[in-house]
Amino acid sequence: MSKKLTSRAEDYSKWYNELVVKADLAENSAVRGCMVIKPYGYAIWEKMQAELDRMFKETGHENAYFPLFVPKSLFEAEEKNAEGFAKECAVVTHYRLQNDPDKPGKLRVDPEAKLEEELVVRPTSEAIIWNTYRNWIQSYRDLPILINQWANVVRWEMRTRLFLRTAEFLWQEGHTAHETKAEALAEAKTMNNVYATFVEKFMAIPVVQGVKTESERFAGAEETYCIEALMQDGKALQAGTSHFLGQNFAKAFDVKYANKEGKQDYVWATSWGVSTRLMGALIMTHSDDNGLVLPPNLAPNQVVIVPIYKNEDQLSEITEVANTIMSDLRAKGITVKFDNRDTQRPGAKFAQHELQGVPLRIAIGPKDLENGTVELARRDTLTKSIVTLNELAVTVEELLKEIQETLFNKALNFRDTHVTEVDTFEEFKNVLETKTGFVSAHWDGTNETEEKIKELTKATIRCIPLDMKEEEGVCVYSGKPSKGRVLFAKAY
Amino acid sequence: MSKKLTSRAEDYSKWYNELVVKADLAENSAVRGCMVIKPYGYAIWEKMQAELDRMFKETGHENAYFPLFVPKSLFEAEEKNAEGFAKECAVVTHYRLQNDPDKPGKLRVDPEAKLEEELVVRPTSEAIIWNTYRNWIQSYRDLPILINQWANVVRWEMRTRLFLRTAEFLWQEGHTAHETKAEALAEAKTMNNVYATFVEKFMAIPVVQGVKTESERFAGAEETYCIEALMQDGKALQAGTSHFLGQNFAKAFDVKYANKEGKQDYVWATSWGVSTRLMGALIMTHSDDNGLVLPPNLAPNQVVIVPIYKNEDQLSEITEVANTIMSDLRAKGITVKFDNRDTQRPGAKFAQHELQGVPLRIAIGPKDLENGTVELARRDTLTKSIVTLNELAVTVEELLKEIQETLFNKALNFRDTHVTEVDTFEEFKNVLETKTGFVSAHWDGTNETEEKIKELTKATIRCIPLDMKEEEGVCVYSGKPSKGRVLFAKAY
Ligand SMILES: [Zn+2]
Ligand SMILES: [Zn+2]
Repeated sequence: MSKKLTSRAEDYSKWYNELVVKADLAENSAVRGCMVIKPYGYAIWEKMQAELDRMFKETGHENAYFPLFVPKSLFEAEEKNAEGFAKECAVVTHYRLQNDPDKPGKLRVDPEAKLEEELVVRPTSEAIIWNTYRNWIQSYRDLPILINQWANVVRWEMRTRLFLRTAEFLWQEGHTAHETKAEALAEAKTMNNVYATFVEKFMAIPVVQGVKTESERFAGAEETYCIEALMQDGKALQAGTSHFLGQNFAKAFDVKYANKEGKQDYVWATSWGVSTRLMGALIMTHSDDNGLVLPPNLAPNQVVIVPIYKNEDQLSEITEVANTIMSDLRAKGITVKFDNRDTQRPGAKFAQHELQGVPLRIAIGPKDLENGTVELARRDTLTKSIVTLNELAVTVEELLKEIQETLFNKALNFRDTHVTEVDTFEEFKNVLETKTGFVSAHWDGTNETEEKIKELTKATIRCIPLDMKEEEGVCVYSGKPSKGRVLFAKAY
Repeated sequence: MSKKLTSRAEDYSKWYNELVVKADLAENSAVRGCMVIKPYGYAIWEKMQAELDRMFKETGHENAYFPLFVPKSLFEAEEKNAEGFAKECAVVTHYRLQNDPDKPGKLRVDPEAKLEEELVVRPTSEAIIWNTYRNWIQSYRDLPILINQWANVVRWEMRTRLFLRTAEFLWQEGHTAHETKAEALAEAKTMNNVYATFVEKFMAIPVVQGVKTESERFAGAEETYCIEALMQDGKALQAGTSHFLGQNFAKAFDVKYANKEGKQDYVWATSWGVSTRLMGALIMTHSDDNGLVLPPNLAPNQVVIVPIYKNEDQLSEITEVANTIMSDLRAKGITVKFDNRDTQRPGAKFAQHELQGVPLRIAIGPKDLENGTVELARRDTLTKSIVTLNELAVTVEELLKEIQETLFNKALNFRDTHVTEVDTFEEFKNVLETKTGFVSAHWDGTNETEEKIKELTKATIRCIPLDMKEEEGVCVYSGKPSKGRVLFAKAY
């Protein structure tokens, strides 16, 4: 807690890593690439979960749970999906350990307990779920199936970073089955829209909605909708994806239904997910050189009260005032904590709450007791004011709303000033090198150009925005004709 | 839905398996021993989770998340724990698949991608967590640590049954660290008490609180507290356990703290868990030959309204009434669903809701519209009554409370009449064979006797009840002296 964070300007990546650990959000574990999500970080994730879960249920979805393991023969059934994930699969090959005859007190894998068929630890659950849906679907009466799962998944990554890219992560994955292509497409769009609403309104992070190019699509999808956010270092972050899977999984797992006329047809599918990666987006969008900045919607404690006292008498008077404040705030649905730890001085508490991004801090000292006031400090602007006790609850309520809005508007302003239209490849490279952010440019629609640009600049097409204007132009790289601008950026 | 369930009298085990599947709670998956928890079953589990989570937080615990994988070298560090779980471990040995050169379109484990150290899929998380706690704990100021985790775990079981024993299951595991033995012991007892309260008040299942004998203790524990319930077939079911782990894990992972005097000492530990096994207890305690019976606290829908109509006019009138009823009930915090599916007849809906254990069913037909009444049916007693609309909301509210109590009292009565004191081994065997249930008998306190009784009768010591009376006696098997009665039973 004592040492200051590395500043963003000095080393953005180091700033992020330090912040995650020092703010008690997460840390690396003894397992390569797997993180420990600490209580404070998990409390923020729980708030995300609760709101998303509410939104999923409001849109007609139910939760269920499918196995962690996918037998290899099911995993490989949908070829593109299998190919896309094969290189990242953790594989269970044995089901027993035994005493190691050569090393007393140590265990080894029991060679006799080899599985007949290897089990893949799910990197995503389409295969196991569509193999299950086959038995659930006979006719149109069984459709749609609108299911979500909260789960852990494993994708073996070589270079990992806390929250942003970890071998194991937590997520939700929706898996839906529909009668028609139109219905499945509508579902995929609806859920992408749910994500956009959640990330903008709840997390205060502006996003661009779009579709992925073929090369960036989910393995096995026919269309991938996405929401793309922009971090403070000018790199983009894919915050959520929603896939129209066509009939690919239905065909791979032979899932047919009888329509009203009794005719058999393959079922149409979607899947969609967001993960603990959102924690990374949250941190990198709002935080500053003093630490985490949390939108009030996501703060485990929206307000913290710190007593400043010299003796027990003062503390007991302050405690009385604090109790009244807490009951007033809680009556308004505001979460508040009285930090009366006697193991820490006020200065250390201030530093900790600042580092952990508590939106509002109330300090109460002897002078305040005399004057019927408190000192109120905003985490986002780092400004302080003196507020009378009778105005306090209303002020706090208004300020929390204001902070939520301010953070969104600040991030929106940053994002909007970092979308740059360019018409030449020189400009393109120049913007990426100096200004950073999204580059809005014409593209000829080919994989080759996309690949070449990536090679030369490390920028990828983040999305073809849903609200793209039709505009005749020429590709920024190849000079071939184009009908509209797409968004390029370097990305997490 | 058409065929009736096998009756309990006919084949209890078959009845259970059929009920779980037909009531849409869970089913077997393509992965050996792993289940799919279907939306209706998962909705019940979510209700359990929400209440438990509330109780954990109320008692000062926070949630966190630790890795799914445990490196073998950490897993084997606490020897007894490792030994206890070694035979049930799913082991990840590789981190990549590749195209199988011999079988086009198929994948195989990439032999080049062998892990240097195997990873155990967590059967329980003490090892990975205590390895983490080492870095979190320096002094008494860092204690206690009161953490809970909601997670999936894997224990490779040869004979599995839905919810009762599955290779993968969902659970929560609390892991706490304390300064003193007394504090850790108190925590273990507190959490066992939380479980007892939850299972009795919320799930309407009476339990006996007790401690396990040495042979039934959790591997690595010094004392295992438990709650034991009795199923309708007279077999016991361990519904939750809370372990006092002494300093075993602290020593294995070298977790020391400096006390107020600066002296270093090992930390004291507890762990405690309940799992989706509780779903099995729920089903087997309350359900009947018509299907699931749910305590109102756990019912995803506490009330269902079924319209009975011959034409659209009638349906629209009924819908109006149903809407009023729903808003009245929802205002009282009661969950209610209007089952207006036009793909099912009322009879089929009645059968389904009965099978799925909806506590109260309201039917509204043309006669009811005339009379301003509805038909109200109780799932637990299968009784029906006519209720006027203006009495309905209050009646429903009272009945839901009554059903919750009735179910508990019925189960309590069954349990109490199935605890039989015996003083000879003949009686002991006779009760187990004919009356079943708990047998309360003197035991000489030795492993040998316990083992021998298990061999001869398949009954185990379920627990030494916390409220055991001191009573001089002689062991029912060995004739050696004993100071009190313990509870034996055949168990799940
Ligand atoms: Zn800039
Ligand atoms: Zn009986």
